Amino acid sequence: MNVAQLSTPALIIDSDALDHNLRIMAAARPGPLLRPHVKAHKCSSLAAAQAAVGHRSFTCATVREMIGMADAGLGDDLLLANEVIDSTRLAGLAAAQDRAMITVALDSDETVDAAAQAGIHHALIDVNIGLPRCGCRPDDAARLADRARGRGIDVRGVMGYEGHLMVMDDSDEQRSRVDDAVERLVGAHEHVGGDVISAGGTGTYHLHHRVTEVQAGSYALMDSYYAQLGHPFIQACFVVGTVVSVSANYAVADVGLKAMGMDHGNPTIAPCVDDAASSVWFLSDEHVTFAPATPVRVGDQIRVIPAHIDPTMAMHDVAWLVHDGEVIDRWPIDLRGW
Amino acid sequence: MNVAQLSTPALIIDSDALDHNLRIMAAARPGPLLRPHVKAHKCSSLAAAQAAVGHRSFTCATVREMIGMADAGLGDDLLLANEVIDSTRLAGLAAAQDRAMITVALDSDETVDAAAQAGIHHALIDVNIGLPRCGCRPDDAARLADRARGRGIDVRGVMGYEGHLMVMDDSDEQRSRVDDAVERLVGAHEHVGGDVISAGGTGTYHLHHRVTEVQAGSYALMDSYYAQLGHPFIQACFVVGTVVSVSANYAVADVGLKAMGMDHGNPTIAPCVDDAASSVWFLSDEHVTFAPATPVRVGDQIRVIPAHIDPTMAMHDVAWLVHDGEVIDRWPIDLRGW
Repeated sequence: MNVAQLSTPALIIDSDALDHNLRIMAAARPGPLLRPHVKAHKCSSLAAAQAAVGHRSFTCATVREMIGMADAGLGDDLLLANEVIDSTRLAGLAAAQDRAMITVALDSDETVDAAAQAGIHHALIDVNIGLPRCGCRPDDAARLADRARGRGIDVRGVMGYEGHLMVMDDSDEQRSRVDDAVERLVGAHEHVGGDVISAGGTGTYHLHHRVTEVQAGSYALMDSYYAQLGHPFIQACFVVGTVVSVSANYAVADVGLKAMGMDHGNPTIAPCVDDAASSVWFLSDEHVTFAPATPVRVGDQIRVIPAHIDPTMAMHDVAWLVHDGEVIDRWPIDLRGW
Repeated sequence: MNVAQLSTPALIIDSDALDHNLRIMAAARPGPLLRPHVKAHKCSSLAAAQAAVGHRSFTCATVREMIGMADAGLGDDLLLANEVIDSTRLAGLAAAQDRAMITVALDSDETVDAAAQAGIHHALIDVNIGLPRCGCRPDDAARLADRARGRGIDVRGVMGYEGHLMVMDDSDEQRSRVDDAVERLVGAHEHVGGDVISAGGTGTYHLHHRVTEVQAGSYALMDSYYAQLGHPFIQACFVVGTVVSVSANYAVADVGLKAMGMDHGNPTIAPCVDDAASSVWFLSDEHVTFAPATPVRVGDQIRVIPAHIDPTMAMHDVAWLVHDGEVIDRWPIDLRGW
């Protein structure tokens, strides 16, 4: 089937661009030096492609992602880089330990006790290294590790996430601040012990030399937000839309804000002729209104580039893998929900 | 089951608040004077509640919503208030005519021809009344109606949507501009004919006296954007979250931007004690970081009010209907996707 035959809006992945991104990252951080973050795509087929280039350990943000990865046979080493205290969800996760190695993040007495109660075997201590989100104080990490070990949990090491440093204009300042953040994490690790020091993301993967692994997700498919970085990753994911209405100075296509994560602002429209860029006016539930760079007609297809890939993936049931304009596979976005 | 037992994030609907909203609107625009918009909830169980208070005609934004409503036995009079030219989708819609009355919106030669080709029986001419989106020029409406009738389509009248006038500070200016927009629609209707003049939304439902029906959706569940209007509708939908991490001056709960439409900005956290309001700092994929108005502990539940209800509903599989803190029903969000 040709892309032109897809009903729209349709999420497509360019297989050449995806392969390019996976190769570049696997060269920079081969095998276990990268723990790809599943939340950026929520697709076990894509995770299998990451495994095929050598990464067998994965990061997840939800219990659903963890269990889905285990069910997909990708459970060699799954990290839930998030705090969960819900006993129902933790029970499901513990049950997946029969077919996967499950590690959770812990940052408080309550999360330690909930994991122990559920029978979770492995954990990392989640350390706050500057982003105001989860993570314990660095000077509390050793105490939490002791508490977890006292309750029978194998503490494998520490994790942190310097999410506030992913996109910065000044690369020297970024490097310096990432070093400071890692210093906090390494300092905590000295008292926690274990083999794992996990941190980072697509915006900082090239700046880490003291951690044992980097958690990066967006690099595989990319979005217009991370494109500002000038890293060697290229856009591999688009939402294809159809022009449904044309007026004198604007046109409307069927890619709305229910098909496109909007927290990083409006998406952009991929240039199709002469590299001219169309300007996006606004999105409604099921429409994008835009000023086309070159004239369009009702029925024409456009390709829309998300400003934030993660929530965009979560809005679709399926991604179509495309090579040279032909659909070569159907990848369910099977890890949606919680 | 008590709300406290729900795994989170969980979408809940307060049944008393929903009933209040449905009653208020049914009193203002009884029966066929309102054509509730399904896109605001994507839930056929909620549409059934709207039918139970007297509205038997519905508005949809996608073919999936149309077919789902037909399958749910709510197909007395379904309007697709959107342009579709995809022949696969239109064929599915035409097939639903065996169990539902299907009307589509047409605004161009291409949409007329696609509907005729698919064997769609009924249509409205979609007229642009000021919002830069779909809709033909008012002076082109009669020509399109003739073209549609010439191809065997029953043209029932006209529709327009003054979406740019839904939320305005100056109520006199809003009234005046809505009157102007409706004047364009009524003018087009004089040349198109038919029984239907359809327009409006939750922001303008009280300003329409010349149309035969108003298309409103958000009034049923509401959001913080429409709450600014001061209309008599109250918040009926929340995403329940659990506090998973607490720091010195902020806390983190498990309601992130994959559980919450973000195009209208950050959500708000419903006050739970002394009407004090917590301030939201930011959302990540699976987290909201906020400064609690009163101290919270890991495990506490919070209720988050969406800034935009429509995309929020589309992110969840199910809504839990709640009365006095008890879950009394499970409503699938069955009309998601396209």
